[in-house]
Order: sequence, then structure tokens, then C-alpha cells
Amino acid sequence: MKRKIGIVGATGYTGVELLRLLVNHPGVEITYVTSREHAGTRVDAMFPNLRGFLDLDFSAPANEQLAECDLVFFATPNGVAMKSAQALLDAGVKVIDLAADFRIKDIAVWEKWYGMQHASPQLVEEAVYGMPELNREQVRGARLVANPGCYPTAVTLGLLPLVENGLVDLSQVIADTKSGVSGAGRKAEVHTLLAEAGDNFKAYAVAGHRHQPEIAQTLSLIAGCPVKPTFVPHLLPMIRGIHATLYTTLTAAADLQSLYEQRFAQETFVDVLPAGSHPETRSVRGANVCRIAVHRPGNESRVVVLSVIDNLVKGAAGQAVQNMNLMLGLEERTALGNPGLLP
Amino acid sequence: MKRKIGIVGATGYTGVELLRLLVNHPGVEITYVTSREHAGTRVDAMFPNLRGFLDLDFSAPANEQLAECDLVFFATPNGVAMKSAQALLDAGVKVIDLAADFRIKDIAVWEKWYGMQHASPQLVEEAVYGMPELNREQVRGARLVANPGCYPTAVTLGLLPLVENGLVDLSQVIADTKSGVSGAGRKAEVHTLLAEAGDNFKAYAVAGHRHQPEIAQTLSLIAGCPVKPTFVPHLLPMIRGIHATLYTTLTAAADLQSLYEQRFAQETFVDVLPAGSHPETRSVRGANVCRIAVHRPGNESRVVVLSVIDNLVKGAAGQAVQNMNLMLGLEERTALGNPGLLP
Amino acid sequence: MKRKIGIVGATGYTGVELLRLLVNHPGVEITYVTSREHAGTRVDAMFPNLRGFLDLDFSAPANEQLAECDLVFFATPNGVAMKSAQALLDAGVKVIDLAADFRIKDIAVWEKWYGMQHASPQLVEEAVYGMPELNREQVRGARLVANPGCYPTAVTLGLLPLVENGLVDLSQVIADTKSGVSGAGRKAEVHTLLAEAGDNFKAYAVAGHRHQPEIAQTLSLIAGCPVKPTFVPHLLPMIRGIHATLYTTLTAAADLQSLYEQRFAQETFVDVLPAGSHPETRSVRGANVCRIAVHRPGNESRVVVLSVIDNLVKGAAGQAVQNMNLMLGLEERTALGNPGLLP
Amino acid sequence: MKRKIGIVGATGYTGVELLRLLVNHPGVEITYVTSREHAGTRVDAMFPNLRGFLDLDFSAPANEQLAECDLVFFATPNGVAMKSAQALLDAGVKVIDLAADFRIKDIAVWEKWYGMQHASPQLVEEAVYGMPELNREQVRGARLVANPGCYPTAVTLGLLPLVENGLVDLSQVIADTKSGVSGAGRKAEVHTLLAEAGDNFKAYAVAGHRHQPEIAQTLSLIAGCPVKPTFVPHLLPMIRGIHATLYTTLTAAADLQSLYEQRFAQETFVDVLPAGSHPETRSVRGANVCRIAVHRPGNESRVVVLSVIDNLVKGAAGQAVQNMNLMLGLEERTALGNPGLLP
Repeated sequence: MKRKIGIVGATGYTGVELLRLLVNHPGVEITYVTSREHAGTRVDAMFPNLRGFLDLDFSAPANEQLAECDLVFFATPNGVAMKSAQALLDAGVKVIDLAADFRIKDIAVWEKWYGMQHASPQLVEEAVYGMPELNREQVRGARLVANPGCYPTAVTLGLLPLVENGLVDLSQVIADTKSGVSGAGRKAEVHTLLAEAGDNFKAYAVAGHRHQPEIAQTLSLIAGCPVKPTFVPHLLPMIRGIHATLYTTLTAAADLQSLYEQRFAQETFVDVLPAGSHPETRSVRGANVCRIAVHRPGNESRVVVLSVIDNLVKGAAGQAVQNMNLMLGLEERTALGNPGLLP
Repeated sequence: MKRKIGIVGATGYTGVELLRLLVNHPGVEITYVTSREHAGTRVDAMFPNLRGFLDLDFSAPANEQLAECDLVFFATPNGVAMKSAQALLDAGVKVIDLAADFRIKDIAVWEKWYGMQHASPQLVEEAVYGMPELNREQVRGARLVANPGCYPTAVTLGLLPLVENGLVDLSQVIADTKSGVSGAGRKAEVHTLLAEAGDNFKAYAVAGHRHQPEIAQTLSLIAGCPVKPTFVPHLLPMIRGIHATLYTTLTAAADLQSLYEQRFAQETFVDVLPAGSHPETRSVRGANVCRIAVHRPGNESRVVVLSVIDNLVKGAAGQAVQNMNLMLGLEERTALGNPGLLP
Repeated sequence: MKRKIGIVGATGYTGVELLRLLVNHPGVEITYVTSREHAGTRVDAMFPNLRGFLDLDFSAPANEQLAECDLVFFATPNGVAMKSAQALLDAGVKVIDLAADFRIKDIAVWEKWYGMQHASPQLVEEAVYGMPELNREQVRGARLVANPGCYPTAVTLGLLPLVENGLVDLSQVIADTKSGVSGAGRKAEVHTLLAEAGDNFKAYAVAGHRHQPEIAQTLSLIAGCPVKPTFVPHLLPMIRGIHATLYTTLTAAADLQSLYEQRFAQETFVDVLPAGSHPETRSVRGANVCRIAVHRPGNESRVVVLSVIDNLVKGAAGQAVQNMNLMLGLEERTALGNPGLLP
Repeated sequence: MKRKIGIVGATGYTGVELLRLLVNHPGVEITYVTSREHAGTRVDAMFPNLRGFLDLDFSAPANEQLAECDLVFFATPNGVAMKSAQALLDAGVKVIDLAADFRIKDIAVWEKWYGMQHASPQLVEEAVYGMPELNREQVRGARLVANPGCYPTAVTLGLLPLVENGLVDLSQVIADTKSGVSGAGRKAEVHTLLAEAGDNFKAYAVAGHRHQPEIAQTLSLIAGCPVKPTFVPHLLPMIRGIHATLYTTLTAAADLQSLYEQRFAQETFVDVLPAGSHPETRSVRGANVCRIAVHRPGNESRVVVLSVIDNLVKGAAGQAVQNMNLMLGLEERTALGNPGLLP
């Protein structure tokens, strides 16, 4: 019998991407899709790519109906899931939050970066950071998953083998990251208009970005000591895709290519390219894959790792479906088996 | 002595384009730039391309200060200029409205399409439709100029020689037009986000668009009888540029190439391409030019005219400066003499 | 048992798109992929989106190996399939040509437009024009299918209900069409460089384009009398997508919306939008769908039909797979069931 | 009297950009524009943005005619200027090479990176690296100028104040750079097609890029000791613009904002943004400006400098005109005084 799935806040890009991935999932059924603003509208009137795939209207969010689902995704702005998660968990519903409410373990740090009081601090400890390549078994057993941020996914997977093995100078970690504009969400704003962000490139938030503490937390946990990466995000004049260019310094000898290949040999969704490669964001467009290449220019101590994902798939909805599959005891790859769209 | 120029509502794309063109104009000085919302902000903080060219803050609009200008541009939404124009004209200030308030002579038609009551119907008759290639002498003598719409500029110039000479079937005029998104203005809206309008193409307003009656009015005036063109606009995934593809049917023999060349031989800002050409929007990027090619496929009766402009230049701010030059007795080409930016 | 599929010339965009669609097809196996130039290269080295999906090298084309396939696709330039098709058919292999070799029934017309002598005129009569919505049963029984051109697919499907029912003035048919640059193929050329075609829009081939006779042939066949549409293609600054804006004139009363809905009610791959809609190319990105909206502005006699496809899917590889499914007796929708990628 | 200017190889992007800037230059006249391949073609037939500005055909390059010029630009591939420069200098003609022939002082290094034997090693010593902000007086007196590379311009100007003042750890210099595709030139190649480079982002040449030794040479010269920056270039899905994100580590206390402002206070073409800013490439589109912002996130020792230029202007043709103005004793800013094109 198909599991019942609810999606809260499905009018944004991570919402429609969840729908795109789930409409053909053989083990689940989307039963409830909410939008306060668009209640009563057909979902496929807003997202015509779904015409013929989903016969559903947006509903106003109601706890009783969410409580009938087996699992609920929150594809909402930060600060929404933390208000409803406890009630759903109490009703036996599993929860995946695609926003940041449960990502940061240190409540004070979270409140500083997200500018609000946390509504469910008691759940933060329990929440599992949903990156299966890092902690698959924990995800399998989780009631509540904090789906990782898009930049943190690309950066963490890119640095994982180096940090796990204690091979690099942790005081010299730089993540120069670039994202397509869909990462900014489907919000009416001037700076992401095509006439502003098109044919243009810029850094932003150099003074500090919310994904820096998330990355720092994960890397510190892996390293067993505090890591404070320098993190600089940039806005790309395109829709989908993140490219992380990661710089660090080797402190021990290592065959990096085989280190990476071995670390991810069993991982369907991490693809280590042959030595000397340069992954392209388009190779993962629409696909739940992180493609990685590792370089050591001139064979010196500087390591340069290139890591690409589709920010809406492995960086959001795809990874969420991967987590859902694990939480529901389904095959991890279900509904995530299509190649990227190239060109 | 330099003439004093005011710009009302200079925070939009036609506003910043007026500024770009005027900062190097030897005959005028920008003395007053208004924005209700951004009063007190430096103009070049919003538009950093102007750093080093303009040492001015946005001011809240005030009639006394506007009244000290020689000429005021309204780069405002529809319905703003009509409320202030009379007072400025009474104070001896010339006015150019880049919006639609004074374009349509039939008040009832205007009110139907623009959805509001006209605040200065008495000025509509006086207002000169500012397309110098059509009515240069009237523009020279005007106090109040209605700067043409972007689509109407490309369509009217493209059809002008055919309609003036009575060569085509006026019941068979189709204007299939395509515009970059800057034509939608610098407004926070979802449908013009890069993630929505990028890598995408669609028609809009097929049932009816405000520029249809404007085009119909001008063509009818030229033809001396009612013309009702079919007008379909589309949104291009790029920033600047309009391409009008114009279809009509010849009713008399004519050498179209030489007809077009002769009609525009004295026009600096209309460039008739050699026979067989296809004008590209990028060839006019940033330039006050309309490039036109005229085709007669298979030498049959169907005529296909291709007409391109930069919607922000010949379709808005550039044509407005051209009108300003005429109204102030300056050389028509002043500050409009740079080639387009290609590539 | 899975059918064996060969693809000749798989290094272009229709080739990689065939591969993307077929790697997950449950009824077929890609056994042979050719490229004279890249023989010996892994397919996924050229197209990294296929890493993990296809363990195959490009081979130099060899007739013996092609003869072992159940069906061979030619994703080659014009003029290639016509040289090999007869031998393959003789060996009992079914053939689908994605190029134009077998589309035009009048050999003289074909030779004029394609600038070469036809190498297999004897096969042209037999070849079935592979548009299942028009002639599904013929495709089912075909040995040799001429896969339609991208523009002709969008234009023909858009006009089909009107022409079939004799509702319009066939001397007044205008197809103003716009295509993404992938339609020009994966060839090293200056005019399709990003620095040339990006941020730019232009018409091309106004004097005459090869798809005009193809459209004329199909419409004439449907109408039962000669139709000579005016056809003007344009190049869009984006990768995938065709938008056809079709103009004609009604000669009889008709409820166009219900006409279109009924005509395509049973067609999975043609989606008639609600009245008043404007289909977007992105809604079909990566999907084998033609989305259509029909308009009659002001309820007058002019009809405006908007028709969008992904030129690489319903306009090429997707329609080819649809034809293959029919020819092999498989369910027509197999491997074509994913929603478009939006945003 | 106007100086006579020749341009060798004017069919590429730096060539047409030189033409765009020079057609309105009051002190020079373009007398001779060469292209072996397109001799006899009107320049404005290839570059229609120049219609009305330049009445000239491409000529086959001929030394006698070049020798009649006052100054000749080489907008050619690497390896061309070095074959003709000596003869022109001997004839009293000044030369600016926009390619790399005279940039690297160490001939062996040059030959290694450019893969050919140097044809005029005797001129390399004399050639002045044409970055006026670094060595204006040398440029003024030069007969032969090596116009800097695009990346080196953005990187060097961005690091100049730090390196000049010995404030940073020179073993920790990372330049993560991103360029629009016009930097790859107007060559028929697959990887820069819109369908390949559009909607995509990737690093390239991580193992080593020709601009690394050029940057290293200049920084080492300024520092007075060897500097080996890590240099990683990336390809942006847009036409014009370079963004350099520069990372290094402070070794001494400094007020970086005022350091940068003072260093460039007298420089028209370097614009230091207010503290906390993020320069956008579009703010310099078409303009001869380098915009810089300097950051120190968390006030720690890591410095992040953001530096943007238009690769075709300050990164190529604009800087070349700036050099020409100095070499000919003209006002340095002539013909370089237009604001960037925004949006």
C-alpha cells in the first residue's frame, strides 16, 4: 500500500521539485498539498509541467489532515516547520524539513543567524541531519529529518574524504561557492529579476551567510575539532546548479583520487570523476547527484576540489526524497533514477 | 548655459537609462531626480554604473523644484504624469511622459485600456506623439510630448513606408512582437524572475494588450482610415531588445527595398539593412536605432518586415532624449551617438 | 527479451537525448552507438549526465553490427540515413531517421531544398511520416519512419484541428516560430556561440527554410488541397524549446476550445490548455508533450494558436521513441512518462 | 591632426570592441583594419552595430600600409604580433599587442605556456606591460606595449594595495576567477556554444592556466620576492564580465578600506566601493572600469577582495585604448568616458 505524503508550502521551487520527483514514485501517494495563499487552486494550474500527473488542489494547511499522512515535507520558509513538527510527530507522522529549523544543534547560534526564537528547541537534539552519505543509519531510524542546505551539501560532500582522514590544515579551508538563482526561491524580489540577475555575476553575504555555521558544524563534527571555513557565495546568471570550488592545504601524503573513489564507491548519488576532470553543473541538472573532481595543481600542497549539484535536487528535494525513502524503508534510489538533462 | 533637467521616478529602467544617456550630454544638466521611496539615497548607490558620473541624491518629488527645471521627464508608472503635467506646463516647464498618459487621443479608449479615469483630458489633444520620424516639426514645437511605447515604436517604424504609400491590405496586418524582460520594468514580481522568465519563452496578453490601440491609432492616422492590426507580444529570455516580425499583404507593385531606403534616407536613427538581411537585437543594444529589413518571400504578395530596437533606448529613454533635443532646440543627435554594444 | 537498439551518429543533441530517454526504457537495450570521429571513446565521457547509466563506447559504424539490431535510429546530418537504410531494411532492421531524408514525398522538392541527389528515392514512398497523432496505425506497421522536423511538429499539431475541419482560409496561414539554439545542433559554428546567440534575438531564413515544404506537404495532405503557409523561424537565446505562434482566419463558425479539446482528448502527448492560456516552453522542457492554446482575440475571425514543444523531445528524440514504441509493439508511452523540468 | 590607427585581426571580440571605442575618439582615425579571411568585406557587414560609424573594408594585412599608421593594435591570436612587431617599430610605428606575445619576461616560461618558439625575444625586454595604474610613466614612453590579460588585470588590481604594502602572507594567495564566454574569443568551437555553455557553470584548466605565470610575474615584481598564487578560472553563462574573488591572509594590522581608497584615489578607472559592498559585473558592462570591494569577514585575518571588470574593456580593448592615449600623448580618458550599460 502506498504511503501518504503531505507537502506543506508547495508553491515554491523545492515544493514543485518534490512534486516532480514524487508523482512517479511507486511507493507513495501525494495526498495533501498545502498553500495558505493559493488554497483552492489546482496545483497544475500553477505548475503546468505537472498537468496529467497530479489531480489535486492546494489546501489551506490543517493539522488533522496532515496528521493522516505517513510523512510530511515542509517546503516552507525558515521558522514554519518548528511550529508544527511536534504535533505531527506526536500523531505518528514522520517529518522532513527542507528549511533550516532543525539543522543547527546550538540553539543560540541558530537564533542569531535566523533572527528569531526557536519554537521547538526540544526537537533539535533529536532531529537527524539528513545526509545519507554521512549518516545513513541515523536517517533510516529518524522521525524528524533536517534536510541539509544546498551549499552545505555541495561543500560537505566535497571535503568529506579529506576531513574524515585528517589530511588537511583545518585552518585553511575556503569554500568559494556559486549558485543559480532558483536557490533564492520563488519570491517576488527585485534582485533576482532576470533584468537584474541575468547577464550578471556577483558575490553576496561575504560578511556572513547562514550556511557557514551549518558547514562549520558538520565539518567540526567530522574532524572532531572546531573548523571555521571561509565561505563566500555568489549568484550565477542561470536557474539551477551549485558549483563549490574548495581550497585547502594538504598536511600529509595521500593519493587523493583513490581516496575519493573509495570513499564514495558505494554511493549511488556521489560520482567521483576521473583525475583531471572539471564537473559541469549541467551534468546534474534535474538529477540527484553530486559530481566531484579533486585536483592538486603542480602536485603541491594546495588541494582544489570541484563539487557540483543541482541545488533543487541533491541540494533540496532530491535529497529529501532520498531521506524519505530511507525513513519509510523503501529502496533509497526509488524515483531518483533519471539522468540529468543535458543540454 | 546648460538646460536644467528633472526626472520624476528615476528608479526604474527607463529612469536609469535616461541618466546613462544624459550624464554626458553637453547641453543639459540633471538637477533633480525624484523617488518618493528612495529620497535621500545617492542615485549611484542604486545604480553603481553611474558612480563618478552623477553626484546627486534622489529627492522626494516637489513641484517647486520641478518648476525650476527647463524640462521634466516622467519615467513613472501610467497615471502619474497626468496629475502633474498641467502645473508644470503652467510654470513654463516642458514635459515628456515616458508612460502612456498622453498617447491615446480617444479618452474613452484610454480609460478602458488603462483602467482609470484620466486626470487631464484637456492636455491629451495638445500632447504630441513623440516619434520624430513621423512628425519632427510638431515635436520641435511641443510643450508636452507623449513618448511612444516600445512595441509601437518598432511596429510603426517597420510599417510606415507601406502604410504611408497605401501599398498593403490594411485588414491583413499582423505584428508578432518579442521583448526582453526589461520592458516589464524594475518591479518585484514573480513572473519576471530569472528562475521564471529565464530559459523560457511565451506569448502573453493575446486577448488584448495596451499597445494595440496605440499602434492602431498611429497606423489609422497615417492610412487615413481605420486599421486594426493583430498584435501578439511575447516575452524573451533576455534583458534588452524588441524584435517585431510584421506580416501584411501587398496590393500594388513596389520595389520595397528602395521604398524603405528612400523613406528613411535622412533619418539618423532608422537604419534600413541591405536586401536579404535579418537584423539582430544585439546590434542595437544600448543604441538609439531602429534597424529594419524588408522581405518578400518567393516574391509573392506576402511582405515580412523585421524591425528591431533596444526597448529602453529607441523604445523609451533614447527616443525621449531625441525628443528633448528637438524641444530644446539642440542638435537632435546629441548624446545619442554611440554604437550598440556587441557582443 | 529486450529489443536491441542502435543509434548512428549519437554525438549530437538528438543522439544524447535518445540515450537519456532510452537508458531507463524497460523494453529495449542500447547495444550499439556509433560515431566515426569518436570511436573508442566512452559515451559517458562525452555526456557525463549518462555516467552510471550506460556502459558503452562509441563504435565506428559497421553494417554487420547495425544489422543485428531490431531497430536503428539515425541521429545524423541530412543525407546519411538514405545511404544505409535499404541495407538495414533488407536485413530486417526497422529504421527511424531523425533527419530529413525521408520526410518529403516529392523527390525533386527534396533535392532542391536539401541540395543533394537522393540516394534511395525508392524508399521515400514507403517511409511513414512519424507523427502518431496524425497516422498512428501507419506508424505501427512501418519498417521505415521519417521522424518529423521540430518546427513542423509544433506547427502541424497546432493547426491540425482547424485544417482537418476545413474551418480556415488556407491562403492566410502564417507560422511565426521561435526555437532554442539546440535546434541548430552540436556543431562548432560562430553564429550559435553563447557570445553571439546569447542575449540576442533574430529571424533567419525568411526567404525560405526547409521546414516550409515539409509543413506545406502535411497541411496539404490534411486539407486535400495545396496549402502554402508563410513560415518565419527565429533563434531564441536559450537551449531548448520551440514556440509556434500561428495565425489564420476563420471561414466558418466554431467553438475552437472544444474542437481542440475533443481532437486531442485521447492523445497523451498533446495537451490543450484551458481557454485564455499561454503555454510556456519551460513547461515541456525535457518532456514529450506539445502544449497548445487557441485564441480568437476580440472574438473576431483571426485565430491565434500557440503551440510549444521541447525541440529535442516531442520535436525529435521523444517523438522518435514514441514511434519506436509503436513500431515494436510496445506501450506508446514507455519511457516518456516524466514531467517537464520546471523551473 | 588625427593619428592614424591600424588594427590587425579585427574580426574577433577585442577587435570589434576596439572599433566600438575608437569610432568616436576625437584624436584618432581608423585607417586600416585587417583580416586575412575577410579581406574585401565591409567591417559593418560583419559588425552591424558599427553601421553609420565606420566606412571601411577589411584589408589583407600588408606591412607597407601598416607602416603608415601611427599606432597599430594586434587583436590577433597569440604568436602573430611577435612576427610583425619589429618591422613596425623599425618604421616608427608604435605597437600594442592585445595577445600574450610580450607579456612574460622569461622567454622559457613563455615558450612553455604558449607552446611555440618566440619569434622576437629581443623585444620582450623592451615591451612595457600596459597597466597604467601600475606603471603609467613607462607606458607613456613605450614604443611597444604588452596589453595585460583579462584575468591578470582583475586579479592584479585587486591585490595591488595589499602586495605593495607587504601586508599579506604571499604563500596564501588564491584567485578564484570567473569569466564570461567572450573571453574565449569569436571562434567556432563546441564548448562555447550557447547550448553547451549556457545555463551551465564549470571550472577549467585547474591544473594550470597561462594567466597564472602572468599574474605571478607581476605580483612577484611588486612584492620583490616570488609569489605563486593558486589560480582557478571558471566559465560563466554570460557574455561579458570577469569577477575575481581573491583570498589571502593578513600579516599586519591595516585599515583596508582606506588603504584601497587612497591607493586608487587618483585613478579614474579603478573604483573602490564603500565598505561592505559587492561589485556586480554588469556595473562595468561596456565601461573601462575595475570595481573593487575589500572584505575581512568577522574581522579576522582572512581578506576577501572582490574585483570586477568587463573582460573586453578594462580587460582588453579599453585598457588598450587607455594605453594608446598615453603613448600618443592624449588625455588618458579620451573615448573611455561612458557609463556601463545597466541593466
